[in-house]
Amino acid sequence: MALKNDLFLRALQGQSVDRPPVWMMRQAGRYLPEFRALRDQYDFFTRCQTPEIAAEITVQPIRRFHMDAAILFSDILVIPQAMNIPVEMRPGLGPYLPQPVRTASDVERAEVPDVHQALSYVFEAIKITKQKLDEEVPLIGFAGAPWTILCYCVQGQGSKTFDMAKEFCFTQPEAAHALLQKITDTTIAYLKAKVSAGVDAVQIFDSWGGMLSPVDYQEFSWQYIQQIIDALKPHAPVIAFGKGCWFALKEMSQSGASALGIDWTLSAMNARYLSGGRITLQGNFDPARLLSPPATITKMVYEMIDAFGKDRYIVNLGHGILPNIPLENAQAFIEAVKSYPDRNL
Amino acid sequence: MALKNDLFLRALQGQSVDRPPVWMMRQAGRYLPEFRALRDQYDFFTRCQTPEIAAEITVQPIRRFHMDAAILFSDILVIPQAMNIPVEMRPGLGPYLPQPVRTASDVERAEVPDVHQALSYVFEAIKITKQKLDEEVPLIGFAGAPWTILCYCVQGQGSKTFDMAKEFCFTQPEAAHALLQKITDTTIAYLKAKVSAGVDAVQIFDSWGGMLSPVDYQEFSWQYIQQIIDALKPHAPVIAFGKGCWFALKEMSQSGASALGIDWTLSAMNARYLSGGRITLQGNFDPARLLSPPATITKMVYEMIDAFGKDRYIVNLGHGILPNIPLENAQAFIEAVKSYPDRNL
Repeated sequence: MALKNDLFLRALQGQSVDRPPVWMMRQAGRYLPEFRALRDQYDFFTRCQTPEIAAEITVQPIRRFHMDAAILFSDILVIPQAMNIPVEMRPGLGPYLPQPVRTASDVERAEVPDVHQALSYVFEAIKITKQKLDEEVPLIGFAGAPWTILCYCVQGQGSKTFDMAKEFCFTQPEAAHALLQKITDTTIAYLKAKVSAGVDAVQIFDSWGGMLSPVDYQEFSWQYIQQIIDALKPHAPVIAFGKGCWFALKEMSQSGASALGIDWTLSAMNARYLSGGRITLQGNFDPARLLSPPATITKMVYEMIDAFGKDRYIVNLGHGILPNIPLENAQAFIEAVKSYPDRNL
Repeated sequence: MALKNDLFLRALQGQSVDRPPVWMMRQAGRYLPEFRALRDQYDFFTRCQTPEIAAEITVQPIRRFHMDAAILFSDILVIPQAMNIPVEMRPGLGPYLPQPVRTASDVERAEVPDVHQALSYVFEAIKITKQKLDEEVPLIGFAGAPWTILCYCVQGQGSKTFDMAKEFCFTQPEAAHALLQKITDTTIAYLKAKVSAGVDAVQIFDSWGGMLSPVDYQEFSWQYIQQIIDALKPHAPVIAFGKGCWFALKEMSQSGASALGIDWTLSAMNARYLSGGRITLQGNFDPARLLSPPATITKMVYEMIDAFGKDRYIVNLGHGILPNIPLENAQAFIEAVKSYPDRNL
């Protein structure tokens, strides 16, 4: 059966389109009252690990706003969890890893699991989601970049600087690379299984790549993302998103990824220049700018599309939507993209 | 009386030198045992507000490591404090502002004080420091960029995203600009008085400028930094440092600043290119890279100077030194710069 709306996939292929597709990172999230209702009822990992609930959360924003792509509700930290590195979600603190990885022997204890067994709930959620979506829009699957996963595994929780993760890499580089390779191997198997289960594209999130110098980024982050792209691109289009990774856009553009996600510190001109001008770009509205009045949002979205051009472009935020965004503001963002061809010039 | 070591000032003037000067942001800080001894004895604002203690802390790293410049121990939040916006320092949390600025009437309550009265302790500390330094090396004075100060005034504490500060700017831009102008006026008077009291150069720290899009950065941060540079440059060389502000380096290079501080996400090539190739640059060793073994630090410092070139360059970190850096690693950093002309090629 063919997708009713394949605009997102056509933009990933670089085809010319009437308007760019639009979706929002964390679109299945706390700004939605229907999400908060399920959040009050089920804890974080119950939501991730119960396929029916994860599928329901995934389609909530599509029902309300009709974005051009859905993204499976899940979390990047299901990977360490599956690798025998326990992860808890603590209210007010966020992710907490009670047994952080700090030594070579900690790394040895981390397993490369059989993902079909350890993460079967994700593949089940994909199948249910595809039924619910009924070919309306494509479904994206995602994983964290190995470096970003390492940050949490070593630091044990969120951080402004992830200084313990960096200390681990800079003082025990062999152990760090062993861990990164285990995460990479797990992630490749995981994303391939997601594609087999039905996702139409995959996105790799490197939330903390921008904390590394360009040389350290190549060593501790990019080479592992490249392995994932190499392994996945025969199976599905890959989007690579590195927050703060403007300095690596050239290498990223030559990686075989179908698109690159970019944050809001890049002007369209800089983004096109640094990425070589030909690859599809995805982004990059400042999530906090969705706090502006809806009329301002509409104007800014039109200007953003004017600047990036309607082709080889996917409208998105530059990072996840914030929990305190009013519904009408999120709607203004989506509707602006849809009305772009009919705007008054 | 002339300075015994004026290498730092000559680099700011763009003169050719045998080796670049070196200092470290937060060099008077927690990694020093002699700093921790005073910290155990006096609380944060006692240290800032007691001229003899602030002066002693300022010269501690110079006595130990003989950097090429001292920077007056103080805090960027003495400015809101002087403006009638109370600031506390809470253990484990950091700065806490119990009466955050959230409305236009909050902005009205903020005062532009007589800095000579409100901040007299700073100017007294400068005079004592100059005596202690005995013309050994130049003394730098600093202030936060108005945007960075606004971040704390509105958010009320540190934050990963400063989303409340951005919400304030994006929903109440008039009130935000009124606050930014008051902070700017106070900062100009403050830095001029610092120069009168004896500092040889001033640095403006925009720690959170990189959280804004390029357009919003111009509106909410850069235009106010430009006002400060315009007002100060007849009196002393100005260094502008914006963490994450790579996208604004071109405007910054044309501002009249004597040097630009840069963080470690910029390769030397990108930094020279984006800043036009002529202005003195200051940076940009990843503070976490000081956790590497001393021999690695030495090698990386030599490579960094090779890449930037010895002229129009001031060696520094890309942000403040971390509290957990071993003394021998900090020493390796400083000594590498000093031994650069005699390195084995």
